[in-house]
Amino acid sequence: VRVVSRESRVESEETCDSRLTTHDSRLGTVAILGIGLIGGSLGMALRARGAAKEVIGWNRRAAGAALALERGAVDRTAQTPEEAVRKADLIVLGVPVEVTAPLARQIAPHRKPGAVVTDAGSAKARLVAEVEAILSGRFVGGHPMAGSEETGVAAASPDLFENAVWILTPTPQTDPSALETVARMAAAVGAIPRRCDPALHDRLVAGLSHLPHLLAYGLAQTAAGRVDDEWTDLAAGSFRDGTRVAKSDPALWTGILLDNRESVVEALDGFTEWAGKARVALETGDAGALAELLARAREARKRFP
Amino acid sequence: VRVVSRESRVESEETCDSRLTTHDSRLGTVAILGIGLIGGSLGMALRARGAAKEVIGWNRRAAGAALALERGAVDRTAQTPEEAVRKADLIVLGVPVEVTAPLARQIAPHRKPGAVVTDAGSAKARLVAEVEAILSGRFVGGHPMAGSEETGVAAASPDLFENAVWILTPTPQTDPSALETVARMAAAVGAIPRRCDPALHDRLVAGLSHLPHLLAYGLAQTAAGRVDDEWTDLAAGSFRDGTRVAKSDPALWTGILLDNRESVVEALDGFTEWAGKARVALETGDAGALAELLARAREARKRFP
Repeated sequence: VRVVSRESRVESEETCDSRLTTHDSRLGTVAILGIGLIGGSLGMALRARGAAKEVIGWNRRAAGAALALERGAVDRTAQTPEEAVRKADLIVLGVPVEVTAPLARQIAPHRKPGAVVTDAGSAKARLVAEVEAILSGRFVGGHPMAGSEETGVAAASPDLFENAVWILTPTPQTDPSALETVARMAAAVGAIPRRCDPALHDRLVAGLSHLPHLLAYGLAQTAAGRVDDEWTDLAAGSFRDGTRVAKSDPALWTGILLDNRESVVEALDGFTEWAGKARVALETGDAGALAELLARAREARKRFP
Repeated sequence: VRVVSRESRVESEETCDSRLTTHDSRLGTVAILGIGLIGGSLGMALRARGAAKEVIGWNRRAAGAALALERGAVDRTAQTPEEAVRKADLIVLGVPVEVTAPLARQIAPHRKPGAVVTDAGSAKARLVAEVEAILSGRFVGGHPMAGSEETGVAAASPDLFENAVWILTPTPQTDPSALETVARMAAAVGAIPRRCDPALHDRLVAGLSHLPHLLAYGLAQTAAGRVDDEWTDLAAGSFRDGTRVAKSDPALWTGILLDNRESVVEALDGFTEWAGKARVALETGDAGALAELLARAREARKRFP
């Protein structure tokens, strides 16, 4: 089991202790509500590694549940969320961010005493506050930093979380044993659990995930409008990579971007400011200024793995 | 040898006939001036396929020339551009766009009678006009739609052009036999030669290559400024792919972007307008408008291979 022992360097009132101790042991019965790309991959990984006694799945669409069973993402499926959680020691809410709190409210009275609940939403501050108000200290927000532009259990893979960071966002209310359980789940599927304040998480992913998605959609639209079908085969690697995630589910991303809209707008404004400087350098033919902007950006990029 | 026989669908005064007939035969002696990623890959590919009698290379930096020889990108190197082109039937200018015309001027008096000259610059209209004024109809502008964020012959590969489109930008002045020769060269290294008007080329690549590069640099800078070193490992696939080309050589890209600045500014303005709409939808919490923007962009992306 991996233990991330890096010291936190963030000095602010936000708690960002990245140290999470995890112990290897079986997680008991796990219920996954929403067996899409993330829920399905989690089920496959837990089953492949024998980390759960049983994985029970529920999916809003019956076809997705059937495919999850067929692909081995779950041991069995339940007809309703209530039925799925009844015997679960660990409940994973794998649904879009905007329906996570309503689902938490729906299952709350049907949990086994002591059951731990987590989610995999891409925005955390608002969601954690809402769900914690329903489930109190037994809920731990989570966000695996892994995914794909594809959706659904058809695209799921037991290796999706291998070496990915899995952010956990406990609050002062969080029961330490609940945090421990969710960290154990993340480690059990090959991920590296890291703890982060929900608000800080949202600012970080605004730059590292939400802005990249927004720019990819915008780039796809802008370039497409300028290129006739005759010439689409001119698209080279920079376009393909830069727009890969524009193939992502628009409904899913509308929910995520709106949920984290303050930070996303702030990140977008930062980008627009940079683009404005580049535009001035282009318009005035200022090679020195443009070269400086690109060189600094390249250095910035090198800080990332 | 591949022959692109697709009918042009572009109806404008710009000639965009994509039909290029190519005949397989040896290209004679080829001189490559500037043996970087493109020049080096071309030399390797020509040699690997036995498409040239001899490949002679010249590189501004001696270390690059030595490495080109070591990596098998050329048969031999020359001390000066003049010496390199003396016996060449085909001369490839593989240097950055802003130094291509000066190099053409330098070698012009030293060419063998009938020698064909081409280049591989990422922007064409200004460059083609300038170089054509020096070399007249024996020059054919070219742009292989293949590359990498890496630079230099160290990153070169004989497979770089495999199945890539290689744009050729003849003008009414261009000698048809010169066009034929360059198309043969492109086909010989596994690329698909396509003919395009220089001005149209520049507008197309503004959207499909230049804007993606500019956005990648801007995204790298924007995200980096918001993420402490402690959290750089949260960068997931959308950030990595969206900023891959921000690792590209800033000097090279300053030259390309400035050379094509009218079209790049126009493309950037198109992007900024889209981003402005997305920002309004985010600020006002307009899920319908945001979902519509993302869904349309996703459809636009699907038009590309």
